[in-house]
Amino acid sequence: MNLIGVPVPPGFTITTDVCNEYYRIGKEKMVELLQDDVKKAVAHVEMLMNSKFGDVENPLLVSVRSGARASMPGMMDTILNLGLNDDVVEGLTRKTGNPRFAWDSYRRFVQMYGDVVLGMKPENKEDIDPFEEIIEDVKKAKGVKLDNELEVEDLKELVKRFKAAVKKQTGKDFPTCAYDQLWGAICAVFDSWMNERAILYRKMEGIPAEWGTAVNVQAMVFGNMGDTSATGVCFSRDAATGEDLFNGEYLINAQGEDVVAGIRTPQQITKIGSQRWAELAGVSEADRVAKYPSMEEAMPEIYKELDEIQTRLENHYHDMQDMEFTVQDGKLWFLQTRNGKRTGSAMVKIAMDLLRQGMIDEKTAIKRIDANKLDELLHPIFDKEALKKAKVLTRGLPASPGAATGQIVFFADDAAEWHAKGHHVVMVRLETSPEDLAGMAVAEGILTARGGMTSHAAVVARGMGKCCVSGAGALNVDYKNRTVEIDGVKLKEGDYISINGSTGEVYEGEVHTKAAELSGDFADLMTLADKYARLKVRTNADTPHDAQSARNFGAVGIGLCRTEHMFFEGEKIKAMREMILAENAEDRKKALAKILPYQQDDFKGILRVMAGYPVTVRLLDPPLHEFVPHDEKGQQEMAEAMGVSLAYIRQRVEALHEQNPMLGHRGCRLGNTYPEITQMQTRAILGAALDLKKEGVETHPEIMVPLTGILYEFKEQETVIRAEAEALFAERGDRIDFLVGTMIEVPRAALTADRIATSAEFFSFGTNDLTQMTFGYSRDDIASFLPIYLHKKILKVDPFQVLDQKGVGSLIRMATEKGRSVRPTLKCGICGEHGGEPSSVKFCHKVGLDYVSCSPFRVPIARVAAAQAAIEE
Amino acid sequence: MNLIGVPVPPGFTITTDVCNEYYRIGKEKMVELLQDDVKKAVAHVEMLMNSKFGDVENPLLVSVRSGARASMPGMMDTILNLGLNDDVVEGLTRKTGNPRFAWDSYRRFVQMYGDVVLGMKPENKEDIDPFEEIIEDVKKAKGVKLDNELEVEDLKELVKRFKAAVKKQTGKDFPTCAYDQLWGAICAVFDSWMNERAILYRKMEGIPAEWGTAVNVQAMVFGNMGDTSATGVCFSRDAATGEDLFNGEYLINAQGEDVVAGIRTPQQITKIGSQRWAELAGVSEADRVAKYPSMEEAMPEIYKELDEIQTRLENHYHDMQDMEFTVQDGKLWFLQTRNGKRTGSAMVKIAMDLLRQGMIDEKTAIKRIDANKLDELLHPIFDKEALKKAKVLTRGLPASPGAATGQIVFFADDAAEWHAKGHHVVMVRLETSPEDLAGMAVAEGILTARGGMTSHAAVVARGMGKCCVSGAGALNVDYKNRTVEIDGVKLKEGDYISINGSTGEVYEGEVHTKAAELSGDFADLMTLADKYARLKVRTNADTPHDAQSARNFGAVGIGLCRTEHMFFEGEKIKAMREMILAENAEDRKKALAKILPYQQDDFKGILRVMAGYPVTVRLLDPPLHEFVPHDEKGQQEMAEAMGVSLAYIRQRVEALHEQNPMLGHRGCRLGNTYPEITQMQTRAILGAALDLKKEGVETHPEIMVPLTGILYEFKEQETVIRAEAEALFAERGDRIDFLVGTMIEVPRAALTADRIATSAEFFSFGTNDLTQMTFGYSRDDIASFLPIYLHKKILKVDPFQVLDQKGVGSLIRMATEKGRSVRPTLKCGICGEHGGEPSSVKFCHKVGLDYVSCSPFRVPIARVAAAQAAIEE
Repeated sequence: MNLIGVPVPPGFTITTDVCNEYYRIGKEKMVELLQDDVKKAVAHVEMLMNSKFGDVENPLLVSVRSGARASMPGMMDTILNLGLNDDVVEGLTRKTGNPRFAWDSYRRFVQMYGDVVLGMKPENKEDIDPFEEIIEDVKKAKGVKLDNELEVEDLKELVKRFKAAVKKQTGKDFPTCAYDQLWGAICAVFDSWMNERAILYRKMEGIPAEWGTAVNVQAMVFGNMGDTSATGVCFSRDAATGEDLFNGEYLINAQGEDVVAGIRTPQQITKIGSQRWAELAGVSEADRVAKYPSMEEAMPEIYKELDEIQTRLENHYHDMQDMEFTVQDGKLWFLQTRNGKRTGSAMVKIAMDLLRQGMIDEKTAIKRIDANKLDELLHPIFDKEALKKAKVLTRGLPASPGAATGQIVFFADDAAEWHAKGHHVVMVRLETSPEDLAGMAVAEGILTARGGMTSHAAVVARGMGKCCVSGAGALNVDYKNRTVEIDGVKLKEGDYISINGSTGEVYEGEVHTKAAELSGDFADLMTLADKYARLKVRTNADTPHDAQSARNFGAVGIGLCRTEHMFFEGEKIKAMREMILAENAEDRKKALAKILPYQQDDFKGILRVMAGYPVTVRLLDPPLHEFVPHDEKGQQEMAEAMGVSLAYIRQRVEALHEQNPMLGHRGCRLGNTYPEITQMQTRAILGAALDLKKEGVETHPEIMVPLTGILYEFKEQETVIRAEAEALFAERGDRIDFLVGTMIEVPRAALTADRIATSAEFFSFGTNDLTQMTFGYSRDDIASFLPIYLHKKILKVDPFQVLDQKGVGSLIRMATEKGRSVRPTLKCGICGEHGGEPSSVKFCHKVGLDYVSCSPFRVPIARVAAAQAAIEE
Repeated sequence: MNLIGVPVPPGFTITTDVCNEYYRIGKEKMVELLQDDVKKAVAHVEMLMNSKFGDVENPLLVSVRSGARASMPGMMDTILNLGLNDDVVEGLTRKTGNPRFAWDSYRRFVQMYGDVVLGMKPENKEDIDPFEEIIEDVKKAKGVKLDNELEVEDLKELVKRFKAAVKKQTGKDFPTCAYDQLWGAICAVFDSWMNERAILYRKMEGIPAEWGTAVNVQAMVFGNMGDTSATGVCFSRDAATGEDLFNGEYLINAQGEDVVAGIRTPQQITKIGSQRWAELAGVSEADRVAKYPSMEEAMPEIYKELDEIQTRLENHYHDMQDMEFTVQDGKLWFLQTRNGKRTGSAMVKIAMDLLRQGMIDEKTAIKRIDANKLDELLHPIFDKEALKKAKVLTRGLPASPGAATGQIVFFADDAAEWHAKGHHVVMVRLETSPEDLAGMAVAEGILTARGGMTSHAAVVARGMGKCCVSGAGALNVDYKNRTVEIDGVKLKEGDYISINGSTGEVYEGEVHTKAAELSGDFADLMTLADKYARLKVRTNADTPHDAQSARNFGAVGIGLCRTEHMFFEGEKIKAMREMILAENAEDRKKALAKILPYQQDDFKGILRVMAGYPVTVRLLDPPLHEFVPHDEKGQQEMAEAMGVSLAYIRQRVEALHEQNPMLGHRGCRLGNTYPEITQMQTRAILGAALDLKKEGVETHPEIMVPLTGILYEFKEQETVIRAEAEALFAERGDRIDFLVGTMIEVPRAALTADRIATSAEFFSFGTNDLTQMTFGYSRDDIASFLPIYLHKKILKVDPFQVLDQKGVGSLIRMATEKGRSVRPTLKCGICGEHGGEPSSVKFCHKVGLDYVSCSPFRVPIARVAAAQAAIEE
């Protein structure tokens, strides 16, 4: 992107549609087709740069980088210094009078190209990179530690040995023709689009493969031409906190990849940033100025221009910018700018700041929110009291905020494995690389020994909303023995560790956490969202505690209160079992009578928290088999309690076993075979409401019949409910308004919604079961084929996470339309887990539902998604 | 129904809509509302009969009978002689000069009214009817055996004691007011509509409860006024064979219920009928003429009028008539005529005869067929060779044709219980009553000691298409000891017996049966059906034997050839298990290679039988768990065969276990995870077709992917199939045309049919699974609630037997429309068990499917239903 007045090296772009074509027709045909256009474009760059690609005396070097719409780990990023060979490097030396720069560029080029394009990088990351081995060898022979201590002759030796290594491993000579190098790099970008890690990332982020990647070819500028040259990355605002403070890092005499690779710890760009860094790192002001000066101090003129341009870019794009720049021999070049990745809290703060600063309007502020990222803000932070007692082991950079506590693992595979077994893990590494992506995704947090705020670990962690502490230099990681030693404390794999991504602190052992605080910008954003949203957001909550938590998150009612959990505690489960194992309605009624007072208390607690708001209570739903004891001890206990034989109990339990319990005797099939259960639950719900009415608490109970598939099975239940209600009202001499409605979770209910709505006062789409039955998938059993389906792209996403709009969604749309055709006031909502997934929430808005209901922690996400849906309309 | 020239006693009808109203507003309000109208209607009858209802000197007596659109067992049928009390009986005596007639009518009335309206009849049929007890008592005291040996004084005593019994049991006096009696009877008709047996019958016959029953009130005429009076039932054609022969039975000096109750064995109406009866019963012609003369011989004038009127009635209704008549003192009255029930073969013969006689046209002949009843004609008859060796125990009346062999049971409850356990039973009873209905429904056949061709057992058995032998007087049934003695042979419950409903013969033990012959009228009917049907009828067949059987029944292709059964025999199951338990694709391929030749042979056999017709083969469908050994022996065998440990096998088997296998890893989810299976099956199907092509046999294979829910899962399989096909064609140097299509059995497939049809060449609706998923019912688990759902009328029919048109049907309609919107030539059919159920077949015609596919025995039924659908259009 070339903005007027921003110094950008000239270049050109091969557009994304070429990428798809590339996969269709293949490498050779593609190169043939593009040949002429690319040559013309290169000629244009040559004209502007007054040099020539492949020329010896006045060479133009170029970079090739991927231009994906979203940057993604695992993709090839950049190859620098294309156009060099044994002749050109001499010409470049003559032209610049700087042999060190020329040979440094050359050896960087051969290594980078060899690794990425020629596939020299070992697939198994624990194997050694042949280039790194050669470097270590040369440094050892020379007796130096850092790359930039190497001299011209060393660099020449590196190039020689690098090329020999390429020849040995690939059997081919390193390409010397500039255009061969260019095509190799371009194709490598396309190839990397289909690399496994990129595919994994796209899956996580929901990015379609069809987008493809573009390829940017750009004239090189050099940050490695000596101490008047530098390269850096900067952000127009703080990507971790959102603070409106220009910041970034740079390295003198370096090329771009040195900054992000995290090998040399870079210096700060602004003075204030530098001072903050020094404070955290425990560096004195004098030392800081002497050894780690900021760019503002070290290169004040360049800094002034950089600051001026970053402001201009942010004003232009109306969003926080993530920029790359290079200083070549005292001249500033901008290489790239894009909207910066940010943490969830930075996202909120930046959007609200930009709104207050008049740079964007309300609707834009809402649209700027990636609703899923709000999740980060809602999760626990360290409990302050617990923190006081915790032992600080060391301090690193606060790379991605939040609190994490878990067991130490060192490798991504282990992270995945431990996580799968239910462990919470913290990944501890020297530094991370794209190979670690899958491990990072499941870890509670990431702790690295090396790398700055813009290191791989930091950038990816922020993108994922994971807590991360980077560059904690005190860490002594021993991969082989799977231990880490921190200032004399030796921890091994499996030991607990805690990290604070907001402060950079690292603690020994487990540190307790507590709920996040939801005020300031977050509260303002929520108010704004509610102003635009049409869809109401309720919560799924079965306890007063969850209900209260959801109220705090802004839920305006309960869309799904499951009652089955209420049956499991203490005496209740015994009475429930008696009910199930009873032989006749009379005995069932006796057992249910014991449960009634408990259940009424449960409802009272929930209705009280939700005073003034609707509360939808679902009648008993799961197969009875789930409640009975399956072990001999439990069965013996029941036999004694009921005064029958163990054999009798065993036989009754056996009889409840089903081939396909998902499709068995459950939902309203229970209420229709044992109306006593429905009667008891009706009495408990409305009895609780009447009690509260006496206390002056306003309640709006809604009784929900589960698993309706046939009008008459709903009608039967409705009759039982209304009759029991009238009996109760007569006994109490008081009454209360309530609704009777149904879940729509069986395909047939959606197909015949115009019949069911003649009796039902509301519909609540149970999208979990509806997805199971519409696809014919048992959630418990999909593990055997779902991963393969996702891998083969038969399914783009897991339909239990993201609502399947084409299939399940069409049933929702149909049912809503049919239902309202006979009852225009029909209240419709969804209460599956999709209720808190933004794209699904937007779909619910589109089909005209009245509300979504989701778990308490997803309520704010749903509120923003609802607002976005209304704005996008 | 009053036809000009047919002598019908005057009366009036209370219409069916009143019945529904009755259930809404209740007895008292109903009587209040109807009071005036009924009085006016009665006054009209009084005028025509020149007598007065409730009057002492010139009394009008009336009958009340139910007027349901279909007559049904369990319903109250008739109450005769209303209007009698202690005064009126004296007046009637004076008016007729016939005290015996007056008191006989009175005692009949009190008993009938007491039993039916006042609820005196014991609920438990083994308890003794209090009236019967009194009769026995009086007969004993008198020393007589038959009712008509009782004299006037005895009849008076009966009435007196009957009324005392009523008072004792109900606490109320027997009603004396004529109108009280009338209202009691009318309400009893309405009440009986909801009687359990009536509900059961309606369920079996698919009659909606909303139809309700009408009530007919009619002036009484009397068949019990002496030897010039009689009552009878007759048919314009033979209801058992369809023969065009007027026939029927009558009793002199009797009222209507005496004929059907089967207590007195009635005499034949026609001379030829009488002669045939005598031959079967072993009565000499002399004896016959003396003791059992036909009406034609005994009352020639009346007979002539009866014959003339029955001809007129059949010509009027263009169908076989079932008529009731009474002769009162030499004058003939018709009480009722309706289209007669008949056996399946009579149904076919009568329709084809009427067509040939020009009384109906082709379309009407087809419409006359109750397609379900054809079933009776298709089932086995006794093997003639086996019959030669069988011992004839006795001979009864050939009441309902067919052959039945099974174990003896004596009670309906036992019949149901034994049947549920998988036994074939023959119900043996003195006589049957409506209480026996449920037992008769599950029995193979019914054998009774008493009753004629129009007895309860005979009529109901013919309605059900069950084999029945009635009136086998040699039977000595001992209910208490559960034995039956026949001419010295004593059989007990559980012993085998065989009966031939076409000849009346009863055999000891089991007699083997063989397939029915399908020629003559049946073949003509089928030709006629095919002339009108648009829908093709294919069959579901997995073996050459079934395929041949279906070809004989006229199937024009296979709609569903399941391949899973092919894997179970002999060595195949071992190879299959090796395939499943293999760890990688290579080992799976090795195991599959062993199965290939067997499978190819299987397909060759089937394709050869279906030469020239399409054969749809479904790829492997069931969860793999079904194939692996679950017992230790089998697992040990596999461990040895595969050279692995038992523990390994056990673990692999365990891993295949699923929570809900119906919704698990099956269908094309198998093919998509193990493409090797699809490849092998493709090779087997097309390899077989290529082999046959060489032999000059024309084949049309259609490869069907099961359980598709997503376009891409079909596409993946299609790609595998076509690639394998091309590889095979290249190897063989020959090719064959074939289609690739899919089952539509997952709701999502129907909802997204316009996507799937872009790739699929045909759709086959798998309505079994589609019903399971649309309702959310597991067929294996519905037993816990389906009976209750049917009982409570939540479901009117079992949706696995009769296609649910509102829900499942709407998906079929939608999928067909959507599919053809993108592929107008899309071939659509159904292959669930509904494909042979007439109402479902008609639905398939309506939504424009190309074919239905059903089990071989249902093929003729589907062909007729298809023709009817086209005609009804």
